[in-house]
Amino acid sequence: MLSEPTLIVNKEICRANIITMAQKAQSLGVKLRPHFKTHQSHVVGRWFRDFGISSIAVSSPTMAQNFADDGWTDITIAFPFIPTQADEINSLAKKIQLQVTVSSLGNAIKASQSIQSKMGVLVEIDSGQGRSGVNPNDNKTISSIINSLISNQNITFLGFLTHAGQSYQLKSEQLHDFNTTICKTLSALKSEWTNDFPNIIISYGDTPTSVVCNSFHGVDELRPGNFVFFDMQQATQGVCSTSDIAIALAVPVVSVYADKLKAIVWGGAVHLSKDFYIDADGKKSFGAVCKLNADLTWSEPIQGVYVESVSQEHGVIKAKDAKAFMRIEDEEYLAILPAHACLTVDSMREFWIDGYRKTSILK
Amino acid sequence: MLSEPTLIVNKEICRANIITMAQKAQSLGVKLRPHFKTHQSHVVGRWFRDFGISSIAVSSPTMAQNFADDGWTDITIAFPFIPTQADEINSLAKKIQLQVTVSSLGNAIKASQSIQSKMGVLVEIDSGQGRSGVNPNDNKTISSIINSLISNQNITFLGFLTHAGQSYQLKSEQLHDFNTTICKTLSALKSEWTNDFPNIIISYGDTPTSVVCNSFHGVDELRPGNFVFFDMQQATQGVCSTSDIAIALAVPVVSVYADKLKAIVWGGAVHLSKDFYIDADGKKSFGAVCKLNADLTWSEPIQGVYVESVSQEHGVIKAKDAKAFMRIEDEEYLAILPAHACLTVDSMREFWIDGYRKTSILK
Repeated sequence: MLSEPTLIVNKEICRANIITMAQKAQSLGVKLRPHFKTHQSHVVGRWFRDFGISSIAVSSPTMAQNFADDGWTDITIAFPFIPTQADEINSLAKKIQLQVTVSSLGNAIKASQSIQSKMGVLVEIDSGQGRSGVNPNDNKTISSIINSLISNQNITFLGFLTHAGQSYQLKSEQLHDFNTTICKTLSALKSEWTNDFPNIIISYGDTPTSVVCNSFHGVDELRPGNFVFFDMQQATQGVCSTSDIAIALAVPVVSVYADKLKAIVWGGAVHLSKDFYIDADGKKSFGAVCKLNADLTWSEPIQGVYVESVSQEHGVIKAKDAKAFMRIEDEEYLAILPAHACLTVDSMREFWIDGYRKTSILK
Repeated sequence: MLSEPTLIVNKEICRANIITMAQKAQSLGVKLRPHFKTHQSHVVGRWFRDFGISSIAVSSPTMAQNFADDGWTDITIAFPFIPTQADEINSLAKKIQLQVTVSSLGNAIKASQSIQSKMGVLVEIDSGQGRSGVNPNDNKTISSIINSLISNQNITFLGFLTHAGQSYQLKSEQLHDFNTTICKTLSALKSEWTNDFPNIIISYGDTPTSVVCNSFHGVDELRPGNFVFFDMQQATQGVCSTSDIAIALAVPVVSVYADKLKAIVWGGAVHLSKDFYIDADGKKSFGAVCKLNADLTWSEPIQGVYVESVSQEHGVIKAKDAKAFMRIEDEEYLAILPAHACLTVDSMREFWIDGYRKTSILK
């Protein structure tokens, strides 16, 4: 068995998540360009290939290079163009079909000055998240950005990209109206520029909207990432069920305090990250606690038990009452479904697949 | 210059932090057993040796092995005994002077059943943090624990260890009374057991108390860790000044939005972690923003500027007004002093020293 905190991917659940999304995109007639920042793994990446996916998104030039090394030839860096990485970007664009993103006029000017290989450029739109991107109604800035881009013969202006990450704050039943509003904005934007650039595309779609919604009018490609594993944030939002979560951290139980309905596990912030969710009882939890089976699968979350806090190496598991505590007190291991899979994977840097094969992630 | 997010250690500041603490412990007549979980680095570990330190604390058997590999021969694992790591622990105890910790009666029984090499065992006391350890007034449980330990001929019962981590929630001016109360409890505990075990020690001392307080009655060794680098949580608490912070994340600026007084940097949750602090204006911030100098040192924090949010790779830098924004808008790089150095180091896995020499951490 395991002697230290170990991240386990359930291949069957993960591949089911991939095929469900691939089939949905196909039936809706939109391209699926999955975001690989969640898994950062060649092995998991190849499972997407099995279902016909050949285009991906990543969040850095380093990650783009890493997947190019594994044979991916159509990659979008869905992060503002990084001027200090211009050499890496130019070099990679000579080998594969690379798309980059610009997020402001200043960023576009720097990209236009730095790009020396043929590549496509998408303009990032701020569709309400307030993180990065241009206001979709700011035609003056968009026009300046496009003019700056097309002044460089190596650049093809491809269209608009957005990450409507505010969807992560919504419950699943709110997502339909939200998605309709965003799609209207994106359609209008496309219409505005389609006369001058007839082939432009709209790239959109985080996990909540891509999973829950069934109509993406005006949208050409979806870029969800988290759905490959899902996590407790998504489950709490109603986007997936806990049985769709394909990843769990197996942790040794080290100390049990029956009088305090508490157990200490070796599994803390350096394993799970410090991200959390609010559970059905209104408790802040850093993961959902399951039993770990001998074959390294796991049970459904144990009712009434949660991860109350994490420090560097400690996880504090708390039971809400004595009955719930009895469900954990004799366990040698527990399995924790992460609050936020992307950060847990990045913290752990490697995972086991099917309990036996170890695979490293990028970093 | 740097092309990606890069963690930089200022050797001069770091060594000054080490010597200050080493001299303080010496002058107070307590042993300094620094906790190496913060830096996890052989290079930084050797700086402690330069100032006469030969005993250290770590938070896992893996970390103990890693520092034993670099010649450390007196190591305390300040984390509950991990039954699944018994083989690693027994094997290491044959090579070095190893101390382990037990945190509950069940944990002590498992340790007693598993330990097959000579080693010292400390009993963890919960001095009010409520994480792990035994109530110092629970003589019945402590007695059962000690009896369980000494039934194993390989074990020497060494005394009591505590981490009073609730000190991290206090302002520096509150720490003196807090420390006095904890030391009284620990002294009473020592007196209670010293008749039967005349050589027992008390191991205590996190960064806030070890830095701020000047009297540790009854305490034999201090185990602070964070002080080697310090961070914005410690600075906000009043434990250090920002000029004592020995570590900064250098980040490329990618997009600037003057109308929103905002800049996007390549430096997010996978670099800084999701830990934060509340700044002097009551704003939640994931780091303090400084100018990065050409020699890879950094300025004092830029007034009126903070890290408003982090997502996986994005950091969102916000200015409180136009005047503050002017201080960052033309910067190609910024340097971010982390909210919590331990988690930033663990997330980054490597750092540069003096701007040029790269060193990896354990994981």
